[in-house]
Amino acid sequence: MTVSARAFWLLRGRLGRVSALGRSAASLLAAPGTAGRAFRGFRSSGLRHDAIIISGTEMAKQIQKEIQRGVESWISLGNGRPHLSIILVGDNPASHTYVRKKIKAAAAVDHVDERTVCNGIAPEKDVDGFHIINIGRLCLDQHSLIPATASAVWEIIKRTGIETFGKNVVVAGRSKNAGMPIAMLLHTDGEHERPGGDATVTIAHRYTPKEQLKIHTLLADVIVVAAVVFTPLTLSGSLFHLHNLPVIFIVREIQKDAAQVVVHLEKCFGIPKLITSDMVKEGAAVIDVGINYVHDPMTGKTKLVGDVDFEAVKKKASFITPVPGGVGPMTVAMLLKNTLLAAKKIIY
Amino acid sequence: MTVSARAFWLLRGRLGRVSALGRSAASLLAAPGTAGRAFRGFRSSGLRHDAIIISGTEMAKQIQKEIQRGVESWISLGNGRPHLSIILVGDNPASHTYVRKKIKAAAAVDHVDERTVCNGIAPEKDVDGFHIINIGRLCLDQHSLIPATASAVWEIIKRTGIETFGKNVVVAGRSKNAGMPIAMLLHTDGEHERPGGDATVTIAHRYTPKEQLKIHTLLADVIVVAAVVFTPLTLSGSLFHLHNLPVIFIVREIQKDAAQVVVHLEKCFGIPKLITSDMVKEGAAVIDVGINYVHDPMTGKTKLVGDVDFEAVKKKASFITPVPGGVGPMTVAMLLKNTLLAAKKIIY
Repeated sequence: MTVSARAFWLLRGRLGRVSALGRSAASLLAAPGTAGRAFRGFRSSGLRHDAIIISGTEMAKQIQKEIQRGVESWISLGNGRPHLSIILVGDNPASHTYVRKKIKAAAAVDHVDERTVCNGIAPEKDVDGFHIINIGRLCLDQHSLIPATASAVWEIIKRTGIETFGKNVVVAGRSKNAGMPIAMLLHTDGEHERPGGDATVTIAHRYTPKEQLKIHTLLADVIVVAAVVFTPLTLSGSLFHLHNLPVIFIVREIQKDAAQVVVHLEKCFGIPKLITSDMVKEGAAVIDVGINYVHDPMTGKTKLVGDVDFEAVKKKASFITPVPGGVGPMTVAMLLKNTLLAAKKIIY
Repeated sequence: MTVSARAFWLLRGRLGRVSALGRSAASLLAAPGTAGRAFRGFRSSGLRHDAIIISGTEMAKQIQKEIQRGVESWISLGNGRPHLSIILVGDNPASHTYVRKKIKAAAAVDHVDERTVCNGIAPEKDVDGFHIINIGRLCLDQHSLIPATASAVWEIIKRTGIETFGKNVVVAGRSKNAGMPIAMLLHTDGEHERPGGDATVTIAHRYTPKEQLKIHTLLADVIVVAAVVFTPLTLSGSLFHLHNLPVIFIVREIQKDAAQVVVHLEKCFGIPKLITSDMVKEGAAVIDVGINYVHDPMTGKTKLVGDVDFEAVKKKASFITPVPGGVGPMTVAMLLKNTLLAAKKIIY
C-alpha cells in the first residue's frame, strides 16, 4: 500500500516538473523522497478510490526528525541547545495545566493588547511570525519567520507533490495567522526570494455568499479551509526564552494531546461541514485547517472535527488532510522549525 | 446628462446601504455627494447604454481640492506648508527634464537597491507606502500610508459607489505596488481599523492560464487590471523634503502631462487588450491600471492605452475607467494625499 502511494506520488512529481515550464523543480517540490511515506491509501487509473489521506502526524514526525538533526548539528558546532519556556497571559485553565505540567512558568500578565505584544518582540525571535516586520517580509516575498499554520499548509502541499503552478486555489478564511498568509504563499512568484506557489488564488470569507463559494470551490484544484471564527476574549500568551533571551509568542489554546506548544486562538471555532462533497471538483486536493469541538451523539462525548465533511469529501478528492492528525501536528512541527531558524539566525 | 448620472448614482448608493447588512455606509461609500460629477454618460432601465466612464481626472481634481482645503487648514493652525523636493536616482531623461523644469534636484545616486532604499526611509515619511512597516500594517488592516495606485483604485471604487461587499472581484496582477495591495484592500474586513472591501477576491497573474482567467473574470462583479510587466532597469528615485526632513520615495517614471510627481515603474509595460469584451460579465465594473505606449497605425504616433480593450468593453460594463484619464491622475492625487497625511502625522 505504501509502495503504491509512493509510486503514484513520484509520477505526479515528474508531471509537476514538466508543467513547471522549466523552473527548478526544487522550488516546487520539497523533499520528494520523504513524502510518500506520509500517505495512507492509494489510487490507480480506472478505479475510483478514496482520496489519499495525508497524515500530518507522520509528516510532522519526519520534519521533527529533520529539526532534531538540525539541532544536533547546531549543538555540535558549539552552540547551546535552543529551548523554550513560557509565561502565560490570561487564565485558560487548559493552558495553566499545560504549563504546570510541561514548562516552568516565569510570570503572568493580564489584558495585553495582542498587536502590542506581537510588535514588542524582536522580529528575529518572533517564532510565531506575527510581528509586523515578519508579516511585511512575508507579503513582499522575502525570507521571514512564517506563521506556523500557513507554513504547515505549504509544507503539506509541497511535500505531498500537489501542484499549484497555474492552478486554481480557494482559501476559505482571511485570518491574519492562517488564511491571509496561506493565500500570500500560494499566489506569489515561485522565483522570488521566498518562493511562492504561482497559483491563481481566490480568498473567500464569511461574507462570500454560500452559492458563490461553491462556484469557486468547484473550479479549485486545491481547497484550503481555514474558516476561523473566534471570540477575542482573554488571550493566552507565552514568553519564550531562546538562548536565554526572551521570545514572546501568542499561545491561544493548548491542544491536550500536543507534545509541544500549539498556536490556536482561544475560543476558536471553525465551521463544521463548511465544505461538502457537492462543492468539491473530482480530484481536487483538500487541506482542512479547521478545529471544531462538536458533540458526538453516538458516544455522547465531544470530538474534534475540521471544516470539511471528511467522510463524504474523501470519496471525491485526490488528497485530503484529516482532523485530527492533519494540519495540527504539522503546525507544531513548523513552530519548532521556526524556533530552530530563529536560534540559528538564518533569516535575520 | 450629469444630473441623470448623479441620480443613478444616488440610487446605487442607497441600494449599497441596504445590502451592507447594517454596517456604516460611511465605510462603504466615500464622499457620495461629490462623486456624481465625476461621471460622463448615464444608463437607464430597459435601454442598453455604454458603461459610465469614470473620469479619474475629474475625481482627482475633487480630491486635490479636498487636499488643498486640508493644507490651508493645516497652515492656518501655524504649521508649515508641506512641500516636496526630489533627488533623482538613475538617468531617465524624462525624469531629468521633469526635475529641471519643475523641482530643484538636490543630488544624484546610481545603482541603489530598491528595497534597501524603501526600508531606509522612516515609515512615517514613506509617502509611497513601500516601507516594510507600511506594507505590514496594510496587510494587517491597520492604518498606514498605502501605495498610491492601490489607494487610487480604492477611492475610484468607493467614490463611484461600486459595491464590493460579498461581491466577486478579480485582480489581474500581483505586483507589490499595485495588484497585491489592491487585493489586500478589497478582500479585508470592512470593520477593521483600516476598513476593507469585504469582497471575494481572486488574484490572477502571468501564470494564470488565459482560459482560466476568462472563467474568473466572467464571474467577477469588479475587474481590476494591473498586469505590470517591467524590466527592473535603473530606477529613478526621489528624495522628498517634508517639514525640512528628507523623505525618499521611488519615482519610476514621470508622466509627461502630470502636474505632480507620478509613481510608475520605469520601463513599465502592461498587456494591451488583456481584457476583452468576451471576458466581461454584463454590468461588471472595470478598473484599468495598465499603462502601455503603443504604436497607432492611424496616426503613426505612439499613444497611451490600458490593459482593457476599452471601446469593446465599455459596451458591456456598467462602469469603466479610461486610459489616460482614469487611474493615472487619481494616483497622483493619492500620492499628494499621502504627503498631507504624513505632514499631519495622522497615521504615525
